[in-house]
Amino acid sequence: MNQATGARSEETLDPEDWEAMRVLGHRILDDAMDYLETLRDRPVWRHAPPQVKAHFAGPPPPDPGSPEEVYREYLECILPYQFGNSHPRFWGWVAGSGTVMGMFAELLAASTDAISGAFSYISNNYVEMQVVDWCKTLLGYPSTATGLLTSGCSASNLIGLSVARNAMAGFDVRSRGMMNAPQQMTLYCSVEAHSSLQKAVELLGFGDDALRRIPVNESMQIDLAALKAAIRSDRAEGFRPVCIVGCAGTTSTAAIDDLNALADICAEEGCWFHVDGACGAWTAIAPKYSHLVAGMERADSLAFDLHKWMYLTYPIGCVLVRDADEHRRAFSLTPTYLAHGEGERGLTGIDVPWLSDYGFELSRGFHALKAWMTIKEHGTERYGRLIEQNIEQAHYLAGLVRAAPELELALPVSLNIVNFRYVRPGMSDAGLDVLNKRIETELQEQGTVVVSTVSLWGRNYLHAGIANHRSRREDFDLLVREVIRIGNALAGSG
Amino acid sequence: MNQATGARSEETLDPEDWEAMRVLGHRILDDAMDYLETLRDRPVWRHAPPQVKAHFAGPPPPDPGSPEEVYREYLECILPYQFGNSHPRFWGWVAGSGTVMGMFAELLAASTDAISGAFSYISNNYVEMQVVDWCKTLLGYPSTATGLLTSGCSASNLIGLSVARNAMAGFDVRSRGMMNAPQQMTLYCSVEAHSSLQKAVELLGFGDDALRRIPVNESMQIDLAALKAAIRSDRAEGFRPVCIVGCAGTTSTAAIDDLNALADICAEEGCWFHVDGACGAWTAIAPKYSHLVAGMERADSLAFDLHKWMYLTYPIGCVLVRDADEHRRAFSLTPTYLAHGEGERGLTGIDVPWLSDYGFELSRGFHALKAWMTIKEHGTERYGRLIEQNIEQAHYLAGLVRAAPELELALPVSLNIVNFRYVRPGMSDAGLDVLNKRIETELQEQGTVVVSTVSLWGRNYLHAGIANHRSRREDFDLLVREVIRIGNALAGSG
Ligand SMILES: Cc1ncc(COP(=O)(O)O)c(C=O)c1O
Ligand SMILES: Cc1ncc(COP(=O)(O)O)c(C=O)c1O
Repeated sequence: MNQATGARSEETLDPEDWEAMRVLGHRILDDAMDYLETLRDRPVWRHAPPQVKAHFAGPPPPDPGSPEEVYREYLECILPYQFGNSHPRFWGWVAGSGTVMGMFAELLAASTDAISGAFSYISNNYVEMQVVDWCKTLLGYPSTATGLLTSGCSASNLIGLSVARNAMAGFDVRSRGMMNAPQQMTLYCSVEAHSSLQKAVELLGFGDDALRRIPVNESMQIDLAALKAAIRSDRAEGFRPVCIVGCAGTTSTAAIDDLNALADICAEEGCWFHVDGACGAWTAIAPKYSHLVAGMERADSLAFDLHKWMYLTYPIGCVLVRDADEHRRAFSLTPTYLAHGEGERGLTGIDVPWLSDYGFELSRGFHALKAWMTIKEHGTERYGRLIEQNIEQAHYLAGLVRAAPELELALPVSLNIVNFRYVRPGMSDAGLDVLNKRIETELQEQGTVVVSTVSLWGRNYLHAGIANHRSRREDFDLLVREVIRIGNALAGSG
Repeated sequence: MNQATGARSEETLDPEDWEAMRVLGHRILDDAMDYLETLRDRPVWRHAPPQVKAHFAGPPPPDPGSPEEVYREYLECILPYQFGNSHPRFWGWVAGSGTVMGMFAELLAASTDAISGAFSYISNNYVEMQVVDWCKTLLGYPSTATGLLTSGCSASNLIGLSVARNAMAGFDVRSRGMMNAPQQMTLYCSVEAHSSLQKAVELLGFGDDALRRIPVNESMQIDLAALKAAIRSDRAEGFRPVCIVGCAGTTSTAAIDDLNALADICAEEGCWFHVDGACGAWTAIAPKYSHLVAGMERADSLAFDLHKWMYLTYPIGCVLVRDADEHRRAFSLTPTYLAHGEGERGLTGIDVPWLSDYGFELSRGFHALKAWMTIKEHGTERYGRLIEQNIEQAHYLAGLVRAAPELELALPVSLNIVNFRYVRPGMSDAGLDVLNKRIETELQEQGTVVVSTVSLWGRNYLHAGIANHRSRREDFDLLVREVIRIGNALAGSG
């Protein structure tokens, strides 16, 4: 029956020389461990020089290269020019910092080319469901809620608002489309809310005009009176308010909206309550500060990341939805080639729900593994203490700023972000804007610390977002010293 | 100026004992290399027993666990119960199989907590842009096209159709929303197209009713006459046809639509041409078979995976868009806290476009690295030969099926998928459906091979989708032997 198999044996992408590849692997692992162990001693960030950029031009290589040579290229042209977010003195944007166990988990997931999302009877789905269950427990959600791990909070916001749209539309929007909506729907968030919400609203066909940006109070929280007024006037004009988005930690200042008040307004107005807690949601597990996000657990949907404040390596976000049926109704769909078996047997048997019924992706990476292994390694109490530590570091930094006559705090610290600027008596705001932007650039280019700048009330402030398990108080001492030193030098020489 | 730093030093998630963690890392790496080197000797898939499932119940652990213990749990409860897609005899669903270099790359990306997508002046963005450029070159796209790496083809289809919607709507749909569309828009694909297109159409607010499923010919390709008739009648009824989706490799049979004909129809009808080439797009680099996807390079947007036929570890997909301006117009959006600098300096300086302007995600994992390192290692010619090899293995398997009186081929092989069934003279189709489903389950549970079943013309067929760089002809010999053996045993005993 067999046909002749021919002389040439099959090719494969497996190593020709397993032993050499293993040696390379061990070298890579050692280098990575060295890198992490000595992070503190290297610059936070370095500008990639032109020859490095030029390195990444050129056509796809037709011929093989030796694995060792490929790794050498990585060491020369990629490793030194990272974002810097794993470094103890990176606070430019809230961006986690990664863990060693998470790195091992990524290696393990890749070793089996692990998939999560479809099919029952593979452990990966149980692991993901357990991680989602843990998130529910830690963030105050009922066990009957559903959830999904995502590529990040942008995807989580998209999924949350998508469930909101389908649940609130009042007609079969999945089949009939937004064109057939009897009334123009409107959504509400503060002017400080994240751009990913706009992207989601646009993608879902609401149109950005439907997203009402409500002004904030002096603490950068959504103005509740203005929100109610907007809803009232929208109703009067024939719009249908369907969703209010609360912020649990805004991007610029980590402001947390009054979530209980928003939940109440949603209840009164019959609106879906979505919370974007990208970073801030995890405040819930910091014993001394959990009250700051009270009311978050009342959200109909909650979007957050684990690659920010849970410090896990990119990418991993999560979305929780209180009403499991609404969640499934928004996404569930079973073509015949993905038929879930009826029985208890084989790969298509059913015992856990297919996670692809909870989002827009089908096959997904096994992001759950790094969460599961790292949370098991450290336990949730240490995590709670670390989040607390970051909040206290923000207060510590704010204290240093307050104590320095050269520095000015933009506003009181609400969570883990400090915005401040270098000031000079007699210098205009315009001059200070330029000066502080130059301080940011100098700091980055010197590689000592990375902070960014944000614009608040039309003025530039240096911005330190602290979601870093490697930072110490001495690092903030250094930041303040350097800002003053560079500010003095630039202002003196300007 | 410094406040008292207090007695308790800061906590961190870094290892207390770096040396022990390093030892564990080397052990994990050795185990992973052993696993991959001996894949062939282990079962493709194993049913997770109840005690394993039970293992994943329970609340989040408050206290730390030793890293070694966490890894032991992985070895016991997770590793043995994978999907099986890295195994040489896994063909149940087209699912890549991973590479050793890809595994190293995931470790490296995690070691720096690498981010790709936002910010210039980090190498990751150059690497991603180069991988996208390589995809353009290899798939026949002009260098002026834009593209993005994604979490998979579902996300790629969503992005492609989203650009299509915004480009074709004829009004500012991003701002005004789908409700304000002057006319109901319609889209077209074959009945064999993938469910992720439906998800995208629903998410984007077109409504599933707007997605016209056109019948297929006997080769499972979209029926061109029926397509034209549908467009004509839709226009007559006041609909506005905006997009035709071509399949370059359907999920069930790997059918490839007549892409040149579809491109012509799109040109005549003024429609956007999107191609879903999840697996099949890469046929373009298999010298002997590239003609099968001729016309694909004329698509306005092209969605495909690199975790299927480029054999890379999950997750990695890609989308290409011919018109760079339309691509940017669909997604670009710059809030102040992500202000791209004007100058040449610092982390927010601009030299490469922000990749977040090309999709719905902001920060993304550094998926590009595994593609870059693996393609550099093997070169594109070997890749082309491997894809060719998989296609020839499909023809080889079809030959074995044709030669066996117990087996029946569902339809001629169009690319890399073989659908066939065990037959018994005198047995009804209903009986054969049950029998072939039982054969699938037996094969899976015995762990020898994984194939799935698909329903074609209302009948169950065993389905082998071959996108596996580890498969050899002898593996297909075994498949055929085992199907016949189990079929005979079940039919005899039935
Ligand atoms: C408040 C807020 N929401 C959403 C996001 C988007 O998160 P991601 O980058 O994980 O998609 C961010 C990211 O900075 C954020 O700060
Ligand atoms: C034709 C086709 N398109 C799209 C997809 C979705 O791909 P992914 O699972 O990478 O999202 C698949 C997956 O099987 C497919 O076969």
